[in-house]
Amino acid sequence: MEQTVRVKNIGLRGVTVADTKISYIDGEQGILIYRGFRIEELAQMSTFLETAYLLLEGTLPDKEQLRTFNDRVVRERRLPDFLLQTLKGWPKNAHPMDVLQASVPLLGMADPDLSLNTREANVRMAVRLIARLPAVVAAWHRIRNGLDPLPPDDGLSHAANFLWQLLGKKPDEEDARDLDVCLILHADHTFNASTFACREVVSTRAHLYAGVAAGIGALSGALHGGANARVMDMLFDVLSKTQSPEEVRNWVRQKVRSGERIMGMGHAVYKTVDPRSKILKAMSRKMGEKLGRSRLYDTLILIEDEALKELEKKGKTNIKTNVDYFSGSVYSMMGIPVDLMTPVFAISRVSGWCSHIIEEKFAEAQDKPALYRPEAEYVGDYCGSIGCEYRPVEARS
Amino acid sequence: MEQTVRVKNIGLRGVTVADTKISYIDGEQGILIYRGFRIEELAQMSTFLETAYLLLEGTLPDKEQLRTFNDRVVRERRLPDFLLQTLKGWPKNAHPMDVLQASVPLLGMADPDLSLNTREANVRMAVRLIARLPAVVAAWHRIRNGLDPLPPDDGLSHAANFLWQLLGKKPDEEDARDLDVCLILHADHTFNASTFACREVVSTRAHLYAGVAAGIGALSGALHGGANARVMDMLFDVLSKTQSPEEVRNWVRQKVRSGERIMGMGHAVYKTVDPRSKILKAMSRKMGEKLGRSRLYDTLILIEDEALKELEKKGKTNIKTNVDYFSGSVYSMMGIPVDLMTPVFAISRVSGWCSHIIEEKFAEAQDKPALYRPEAEYVGDYCGSIGCEYRPVEARS
Repeated sequence: MEQTVRVKNIGLRGVTVADTKISYIDGEQGILIYRGFRIEELAQMSTFLETAYLLLEGTLPDKEQLRTFNDRVVRERRLPDFLLQTLKGWPKNAHPMDVLQASVPLLGMADPDLSLNTREANVRMAVRLIARLPAVVAAWHRIRNGLDPLPPDDGLSHAANFLWQLLGKKPDEEDARDLDVCLILHADHTFNASTFACREVVSTRAHLYAGVAAGIGALSGALHGGANARVMDMLFDVLSKTQSPEEVRNWVRQKVRSGERIMGMGHAVYKTVDPRSKILKAMSRKMGEKLGRSRLYDTLILIEDEALKELEKKGKTNIKTNVDYFSGSVYSMMGIPVDLMTPVFAISRVSGWCSHIIEEKFAEAQDKPALYRPEAEYVGDYCGSIGCEYRPVEARS
Repeated sequence: MEQTVRVKNIGLRGVTVADTKISYIDGEQGILIYRGFRIEELAQMSTFLETAYLLLEGTLPDKEQLRTFNDRVVRERRLPDFLLQTLKGWPKNAHPMDVLQASVPLLGMADPDLSLNTREANVRMAVRLIARLPAVVAAWHRIRNGLDPLPPDDGLSHAANFLWQLLGKKPDEEDARDLDVCLILHADHTFNASTFACREVVSTRAHLYAGVAAGIGALSGALHGGANARVMDMLFDVLSKTQSPEEVRNWVRQKVRSGERIMGMGHAVYKTVDPRSKILKAMSRKMGEKLGRSRLYDTLILIEDEALKELEKKGKTNIKTNVDYFSGSVYSMMGIPVDLMTPVFAISRVSGWCSHIIEEKFAEAQDKPALYRPEAEYVGDYCGSIGCEYRPVEARS
C-alpha cells in the first residue's frame, strides 16, 4: 500500500487488479472459458439461460435447478406498468442504449430486493434483470415505431421470446437457437471495460442496478459494445461504394495503408482469432446460404482476407477478427436493426455483469477487493508550494 | 505493455493510472488544490459556478467570461417537459440517487449536442448538466411529496435557486452562500471512485451523459457519497440513545473498542484532517449558533473528540474527520432531508466529473489514456488444459 505503482496511460492493460472465478481468456491461444467450460462446448450444447446460471452460481445446474431457473426467468419477464408508461413519453429518436441505461435504475425501483444486501437477494435481482432487459429493448423498439409493446409468450424460449416481442413474429427454431448461441458467446469476458465499470461502481457498496447502469454506459462506447454496429456501418459503406470484389479489396488496401482501423478487427487481449468469431463466422455463412442473402457474409470474407494480407505486410500479424466482426451480419439477417445490436450485446452481457457484481460484493473476506480508487499524477498548475493566488474577478486582467 | 503488474485486491490504491491537470491532493499535509488554487481560497472568495468554470476550462474567468457562464447556467435550468412528466410516473418511494441516475440519460436525450464529439460540445453538455441536476433533485422532492415542481427563479444564484426550487421558500443570503461554499468544497477530488467510473466509461468513447450516470451510481455507495447520509443516521442513532455527554462518549468508546467504524472518519487519501472538513466544521458551528440548534454540532464534536482519543490509544493516529462528517449537519440545518444529502453532493461533483470526462476524451495525443481494461487472475475451475467436460443436463448426477 505504501509503494506507488506507475502504470500511466496504458488503460490498466496488463495490470492484474483482482481475483476472479468467473471467466478466463488465453489471448495467445484464443481460448475463452466460463467457470471452467470452453466457450465452444457451451455454444454447441448449452443454452443461454443455463450459461447464465453457470456464471451466477458457479456450477452447471441439475435438471431440477435448470427447470426452476428457466421458470423464474419466464415469470419475471413482464415489465412493471409504470416503466411501460414512462417509456412512451421519451423522445422517439433516443438511442436504445440511452433508453436502456435510463431503464435500469427504474427496474431497480420496482425490485422488492433492492435494499437487501445478501448474495441470494442479488441473484434474484440478477434473474429479474436477465428476464427484463430484453423486454425493455423490445418494448422500446415497438414504442418508437408507434406500436404497442407485445406481452411475453410464456411458451417461448428466452431468445425466441425476445425476437417475438421485438418483431411481432414467432421466429423459426433455427433463428431462435442461433440467437441463443450469440447470447452465450457474449455473456462474459473477464474484466472488460463494462464489467470493470460495474465492479468499480459496486465496490463503493452501491446496489446491483447502479452497477449495471454503469456497465451499459461503458458498453455503449464505440471501442466496446458499440463496435458491432460500427462494423455494420462500415459494411454498408463498402457495399454502397463498390461493385466488384476487386473494388472491395481496393477499398480495404486504401484503408489499411492509410493507417485506418478496420472495424471488428484487433482486440486488447486476443493475439489470435477470437474463438467467438469462428463460431459467428460459420453462423453468418449458414444464415446467408439459407436466406439466399450471402452478400453480407461474402463481403465480410473479402474484407477480412484482404485486411489480413495488408496487415501482414505491415508486420501486424496479431490483428484478427473479433467477436464484433460477424455478429452484426447475423443479427441483421435475423431482422434486428443496427442500432439494437449493442443492446442485444447488453441483454447477454448482463448475465456476466451481475455475476461479477456478486463476486465483487461477496468475495471471501481475505480476497475482498477494496473500493477502486486509483491515483493520478498531477501535471497542472501549482504556483509554488502554497497554490496560486486567488484574485477576485474585478482584479483579474 | 508486455510486463504484467500485480496490484491485486488493493482497489488500485497507490496505483497511478493517468495524468491530470484538474486537481491535486497532498494527503499528508491535508492540501486540496483545484487547477492550482487551494480549496480554502476558493471556499472563501469564489463561487460554485466560477469554480465549475475553473475546473472545466482550466483558468479563472475574467468578468465577461464569468457573466456569460452564469447566464448560460441560468438559461439552461429549465427541465425538458417530457422529463418532468415522466418523473411523475415513477414510484414515490424511489431513492433520489436512483432517480438521478435514471434522469441523466434522459437529460442526454434532450441535449442537442449529444452526438457531437468536440471539446466545445462537451463543455456545453457539462453546463446543461450543472444547470439541470439541481432542478431534477428539487423536482423529484416536490413530486414525491405530491407537490408540483417549481419553476426556476432567474434572479437567484445557483445555490439559492436550488433551495428555492427544493423548499419553496427563498433562502436567506447566508444560507445560500453557505450552500454555495459546500458545492465548492465537493466539486472535485482527483480520481475518487465516482470520477474514475466516469473516466472509465467514456474511455470506451461513450458520451458524457453515459459517463455521468456511472458516476452517480458510484457516488450512491455507502463508502463514497452515501457516507454523508450515513453520518446523519449515526448521529440520530446516538441522539436517540443518549441523554448526556458522558453517554455519548460511552457510545463512542464501545464502537471504537469493538472495531466498528465511526462514519465520516478516515479517508483513502488523507492521513490528516481533510481541509474541507475544517471549513464545514466552522460552518456547522456557526449555523447551530445562529439557529439556536447546536445539538447536532455539539454531539458531532463530542463524538469526534472521544473517537480521536480512542483511536490514538489503538495507534490509529491518521484517522480524522473527512468531508462527510460535518456536511450532513449543515444540510440538515438548511432543511435538506437526509436522503437528499448524497444528491446534493452529486449536483456539486458533476462539475468535476464533466471536467474529468473532457480531460479523458480530449487529452493531448501523447498523454491520451487508453480504454481502461485491467486484468484479473483466474482462480476458478479449469479441469486441466482443455477445460471441463460439458455433459448435457440429462447426464448430470
